[in-house]
Amino acid sequence: MKEIYLDYAATTRPLQEVAEAVAVSMINTYGNPSSLHKKGVEAETILKETSDKLSKMLGCLADEIIYTSGGTESNNMAILGLCAAYKRRAHKLITSSVEHPSVLETFKYLQTQGFEVCIIGVDKEGMLDLEALQKAIDKETLLVSIMHVNNEIGTVQDIERIGGLIKQKNKDTFFHVDAVQSFGKAPISVKKCNIDLLSISAHKFYGPRGVGVLYKNKDVRINPLIYGGGQQKGIRAGTENVPGIAGMLKACNYADQNMERLNAHYRTCKMYLSDSVLEHIPDTFINGPDKSKGAPHILNIGFRGIKSEVLLHALESKGIYVSSGSACSSNKKVKSTVLSAIGNKKEDLDNAIRFSFGMDTSLEELSYVADKLEEQVMLLRKYTLGGRHK
Amino acid sequence: MKEIYLDYAATTRPLQEVAEAVAVSMINTYGNPSSLHKKGVEAETILKETSDKLSKMLGCLADEIIYTSGGTESNNMAILGLCAAYKRRAHKLITSSVEHPSVLETFKYLQTQGFEVCIIGVDKEGMLDLEALQKAIDKETLLVSIMHVNNEIGTVQDIERIGGLIKQKNKDTFFHVDAVQSFGKAPISVKKCNIDLLSISAHKFYGPRGVGVLYKNKDVRINPLIYGGGQQKGIRAGTENVPGIAGMLKACNYADQNMERLNAHYRTCKMYLSDSVLEHIPDTFINGPDKSKGAPHILNIGFRGIKSEVLLHALESKGIYVSSGSACSSNKKVKSTVLSAIGNKKEDLDNAIRFSFGMDTSLEELSYVADKLEEQVMLLRKYTLGGRHK
Repeated sequence: MKEIYLDYAATTRPLQEVAEAVAVSMINTYGNPSSLHKKGVEAETILKETSDKLSKMLGCLADEIIYTSGGTESNNMAILGLCAAYKRRAHKLITSSVEHPSVLETFKYLQTQGFEVCIIGVDKEGMLDLEALQKAIDKETLLVSIMHVNNEIGTVQDIERIGGLIKQKNKDTFFHVDAVQSFGKAPISVKKCNIDLLSISAHKFYGPRGVGVLYKNKDVRINPLIYGGGQQKGIRAGTENVPGIAGMLKACNYADQNMERLNAHYRTCKMYLSDSVLEHIPDTFINGPDKSKGAPHILNIGFRGIKSEVLLHALESKGIYVSSGSACSSNKKVKSTVLSAIGNKKEDLDNAIRFSFGMDTSLEELSYVADKLEEQVMLLRKYTLGGRHK
Repeated sequence: MKEIYLDYAATTRPLQEVAEAVAVSMINTYGNPSSLHKKGVEAETILKETSDKLSKMLGCLADEIIYTSGGTESNNMAILGLCAAYKRRAHKLITSSVEHPSVLETFKYLQTQGFEVCIIGVDKEGMLDLEALQKAIDKETLLVSIMHVNNEIGTVQDIERIGGLIKQKNKDTFFHVDAVQSFGKAPISVKKCNIDLLSISAHKFYGPRGVGVLYKNKDVRINPLIYGGGQQKGIRAGTENVPGIAGMLKACNYADQNMERLNAHYRTCKMYLSDSVLEHIPDTFINGPDKSKGAPHILNIGFRGIKSEVLLHALESKGIYVSSGSACSSNKKVKSTVLSAIGNKKEDLDNAIRFSFGMDTSLEELSYVADKLEEQVMLLRKYTLGGRHK
């Protein structure tokens, strides 16, 4: 059976050249970057090259790049590390209602530690309420953490405007951006956007799993999350994952060179599938920004009267792999906080499918997906609801 | 120039089959284990297979295996996580003076958080003072953390006896073992040794970097270090490094099947190099256990009158790669705490070279190393010390 993967926002299949770079580095540059001899220096060179590339893409210094085990660790490290370092300065934290669990859960934990957490709402399209944000920032505000692209519905926040607004209101408030779904797809300038901390995950842009990045402005202090041998200037202990980082370098180069072309391709995919579904299947609607807006690689559609999980498995039986909401919270049997946040009614919290597109997605595939969707949706509605939605 | 790598305790060159398994998994099982569809299930299967293998090697349940980014994270997660979970029960922590920085630094941090840290000394060979340990454990003792094999001098602690002793003195005291240098080289039964938490790093036994394991007894609670999407039963958030774990599985299989053979090989290497050096180069001595004892893959030799770093680079110029103490603390310009702990005099704190052996080490290589060592040591002593040590 044909297999159609439309879950690129959960994880991408790494580029062949990424897999090769990882395997080659495992065998050739196997030294420990902390070792003082040549093998250590060779391994360290890979870290330096990758930091150089990342710093060029983000508009920061190579020294401002910290390697982590992934986006979740980067988010935790940024938020927990900053709060530990500045806990005596201020105690108010601000975030949005549509953040990834690795931000929201971290803030929940900090709330139990005496921090005040203020959660700013979003509109129907998932856009942050900037007025509410402006009002919320005061002299007690230590940190604002806002994601760039939402992982479930693809809303793109105006991080440049948000960064400006934060610093205008309180220049001592730090700005963290979860760029896990945007890095490699949208250009980001940390200086222009006044970003102090920014999280990246390699496996979201055709790099390896188990590798992430935290950009940290050199003038910002964070306490370590993980203590030990003083690697990465004492901020993140543990032997660096050199082969994974070598793989990420390839993925960075690819993303940098193909960003426009790929985005145009994703946009075509999104428009095509969205039109096919909305025009041919009744009682369907887009969650989040209009099809022409938002991140080009994410399309979230609600199918009234059908449980996401049921439709997901019906599609799976046809070789189509999609997600109900985000993979990252699929382990938990909770309804999407993002769909609640954009104001979906109770009956529209549990019928959403996230389609996310990648470099290998073709319109031919999407045509098949649209057909199967129509077929399965009609079938499910007929049988599970006695034809109520026919 | 011939290259001779004798820094296997810092990191190993992964097996070819490990590198291949990682690359293959990157391309074939690229799904996110949290995804509900087939690609997610395929990825999850790799986690399950690896947990099964690890549980058999450790004598625990597959459910007691948690994947981390490496040994340092495992040590931090065990210690910080346990202390956070049980901080109301007891506040005294015990460790030894020869632990890895990822344990010692974590304990230093906990000291600033109100925990009492008691550090037990070791004898000349690095063996823990069991009497002092027994005396130190009281009803206030929450945790004892002792490493299995020392990374700098190769001392092997009797963890079965230590585990028994701890539980006999206080059955509610938890026992954490840093097994980073022993797993895959020595058989370990967590039940027999009364171990509640145990740390493993894949890249120390020919597995990939960026992958570690924490064994956690199912009845023991730890708070997460990293918050997020509820992966790994909510204990360690973040998308699992499936390809890395697939590589570790290969390394586990290899270690399990070749343990005895490899240990005998390491022992032969250790005896050979130690005899060659001690017999032919004056003013040299073993740091740690006698050559016939201790871990077979680690040999630490002091060269009187020569700074470790100078000898390290002299050997490097001959294509020989060794370590001065441990790679993990080489970034810091501090003298070895391990050598202080075993009672070395001030002049013998900074002249140690750690030779660590691997599957590819040959006696022919070691013969060359012994020759070069003699040549370089004589040369350095002649020039840097005006012949004082001739």
